[in-house]
Amino acid sequence: MDPRLEPLVSKNDSKLILLVADGLGGIGTKADRRTELEVASTPNLDQLAKESSTGLLDPVGPGITPGSGAAHFALFGYNPIDNLIGRGVLEAAGIGVPMTDQSIAVRINFCTLDQHGHIIDRRAGRLSSEDGQRICRLLGQRVTSIKGFRTQFFPVKEHRAVLLIEGADLGDAVNDTDPQKMGVPPILPEGHDSRSAKTAAILIEVIHQATALLRDEPRANGLLLRGISAHRSYRSFQERYALNSYAIASYPMYRGIASLVGMTIAPHTDDLEAEFKQLRAAYRDYDFFFVHYKQTDAAGEDGDFSAKVSAIERLDRLLPMVTDLHPDVLAITGDHSTPSRMKQHSWHPVPVLLNAETARIDAVTAFNEQACLSGALGRFRAEDLMALMLAHAGRISKFGA
Amino acid sequence: MDPRLEPLVSKNDSKLILLVADGLGGIGTKADRRTELEVASTPNLDQLAKESSTGLLDPVGPGITPGSGAAHFALFGYNPIDNLIGRGVLEAAGIGVPMTDQSIAVRINFCTLDQHGHIIDRRAGRLSSEDGQRICRLLGQRVTSIKGFRTQFFPVKEHRAVLLIEGADLGDAVNDTDPQKMGVPPILPEGHDSRSAKTAAILIEVIHQATALLRDEPRANGLLLRGISAHRSYRSFQERYALNSYAIASYPMYRGIASLVGMTIAPHTDDLEAEFKQLRAAYRDYDFFFVHYKQTDAAGEDGDFSAKVSAIERLDRLLPMVTDLHPDVLAITGDHSTPSRMKQHSWHPVPVLLNAETARIDAVTAFNEQACLSGALGRFRAEDLMALMLAHAGRISKFGA
Repeated sequence: MDPRLEPLVSKNDSKLILLVADGLGGIGTKADRRTELEVASTPNLDQLAKESSTGLLDPVGPGITPGSGAAHFALFGYNPIDNLIGRGVLEAAGIGVPMTDQSIAVRINFCTLDQHGHIIDRRAGRLSSEDGQRICRLLGQRVTSIKGFRTQFFPVKEHRAVLLIEGADLGDAVNDTDPQKMGVPPILPEGHDSRSAKTAAILIEVIHQATALLRDEPRANGLLLRGISAHRSYRSFQERYALNSYAIASYPMYRGIASLVGMTIAPHTDDLEAEFKQLRAAYRDYDFFFVHYKQTDAAGEDGDFSAKVSAIERLDRLLPMVTDLHPDVLAITGDHSTPSRMKQHSWHPVPVLLNAETARIDAVTAFNEQACLSGALGRFRAEDLMALMLAHAGRISKFGA
Repeated sequence: MDPRLEPLVSKNDSKLILLVADGLGGIGTKADRRTELEVASTPNLDQLAKESSTGLLDPVGPGITPGSGAAHFALFGYNPIDNLIGRGVLEAAGIGVPMTDQSIAVRINFCTLDQHGHIIDRRAGRLSSEDGQRICRLLGQRVTSIKGFRTQFFPVKEHRAVLLIEGADLGDAVNDTDPQKMGVPPILPEGHDSRSAKTAAILIEVIHQATALLRDEPRANGLLLRGISAHRSYRSFQERYALNSYAIASYPMYRGIASLVGMTIAPHTDDLEAEFKQLRAAYRDYDFFFVHYKQTDAAGEDGDFSAKVSAIERLDRLLPMVTDLHPDVLAITGDHSTPSRMKQHSWHPVPVLLNAETARIDAVTAFNEQACLSGALGRFRAEDLMALMLAHAGRISKFGA
């Protein structure tokens, strides 16, 4: 949504739900052009499509395959190109690390180096999470400040961790140090401008001190740095949309993205039914609910067409738990496509339905890629979905005299 | 394609073909709403549409009728408004004149003036190409430099030629001198800013010296100047898309546009079958092929509906020469519409099909304006076609973390 239009937003007591089935869209083959959604039996989604406006959305733009951060930022109404989030920031947000506009976040992968300093295991022999925590504790006690900049270490999971550097005027145009192969030493960090050169110098010193401290570790005796990125504050859902928002997501990354735009994060749960129970439990307390369902994407990434069909069918079966709440606006879509034939995210547009009393109901009677082509919403950028949801909730007033 | 996304482009060994049937789109009448494409018998295109994603593209934007340069620049992924090419530059590029960022290119039409200096023939009595060449040689020998700026003359065809001025700080905001009517003198060139005033002063002197030299020519004793435009270097296909590209086009203008974006230009040929043979011959040596078919536009400009139908049917008959190559990505479209009812370019969106293993195949079973309305690509800007082609070839990596 164009930030210039935000002054039109007003409050009322409507409830809005954005249900994101990750990687929802798919493709077929020349022999059978049906996608996972088209094969799946989805009576509840199809009934909802009959009573809704439908369409297709482009996560970023034609031909552009988004990462999860970019795709969700678009769904949340933030231009994903203007608001590119780095991997380090995303990782840090995912584990709840508090950041400021002076934070540089870096993803660490602990690795194993041989006596020549060459990488022999990029994941430190699948380090246990306990060892990862122990090592971060050690580094956190001994490496607290470099050149006057505060440094902190946070374990993520197994061999993964986050380094946070705090201080003014640090740039983030610094290369990854992971050469993505074995038998060679890590790459040295270099800054591409003077502010980033300062960051690179700090990182070199972090690597130097950490490697000395980890010298006797049998597996995690080295570090690879990736996604070196400066955090910037994003205007929140409350500030932009006057929405008190609640995020329900099982995976850390999506919880992190939601926290970057100021959503309250539901306690962790692993299952869609449990997520929908959280939605019901919190329903009176918030205006806007972001519910994230991961299994559709996971099955797509695995290349498992029928598992993705099953994941979609499970969503469909549980859907009455959402519709029974009778939200004023319910939008169901994906953040991007993950065709199981491609085993990865793709650029293909994603079906979307928007159910509301004020929706223009089209002739579409099924929720899938082909059917939604003739929907009333047409094809639009994911970035515009929030404005549509707010409008259908009566929360955007007239523009211009 | 948004230049900020270019860092995502990577190389692989895929082959991409962009086949442009110039002026492909059309309109019907109230009595028979069918367009030329809808009337034509196109079994090969229709079969391909069944196995492809289809849609409609807007050359520049709704309601905007493009010239050939702008339309092709858009197809090549260059925003046609930000990258406006002047007629002089287009004409010069078409005849292979080398230009730099200090070149001003001007299209010359030799004309016949009476004893009062009034225009009596805007085309110098259909001057022969031989006379045009002779006159350009004469001017080129005698008018080599004006006010310290190098001047060169290049014959194009018949009464048409190109003037090239080389030197720093020359503007191109100068009016055409052709009054577009007879019985009046040519208009004086005037610059609309100080740098363009310098250019205008040079042009006035060129006109003065050339008119003196051509005083005794029976027909070509005057010059009309049009499309005064500064050349600027465009980033090439190699730089933007990591594509080694080859252009096959019979008309000079299209060869010129392709050369502006760094394509290698195939030897001249006059016929589509010969063009397709060139495609096959060069197929191993390049990644990207631009093949231009002029006859669809020519028939449209002539207002000859059935000739345009025939031109489309000829394309369809020869199409197996292209599909038998099994390119990884094949896009077929037009640069704009040229409805034979209008006898000129128009703004109407143009059907497009995109064939690739990774294409989402839609329910469209024919290649024409009406059928493609329900295609999976929807309606999009021509400028986005290159990103789509690259994505379907696996040449764009994921955006953002």
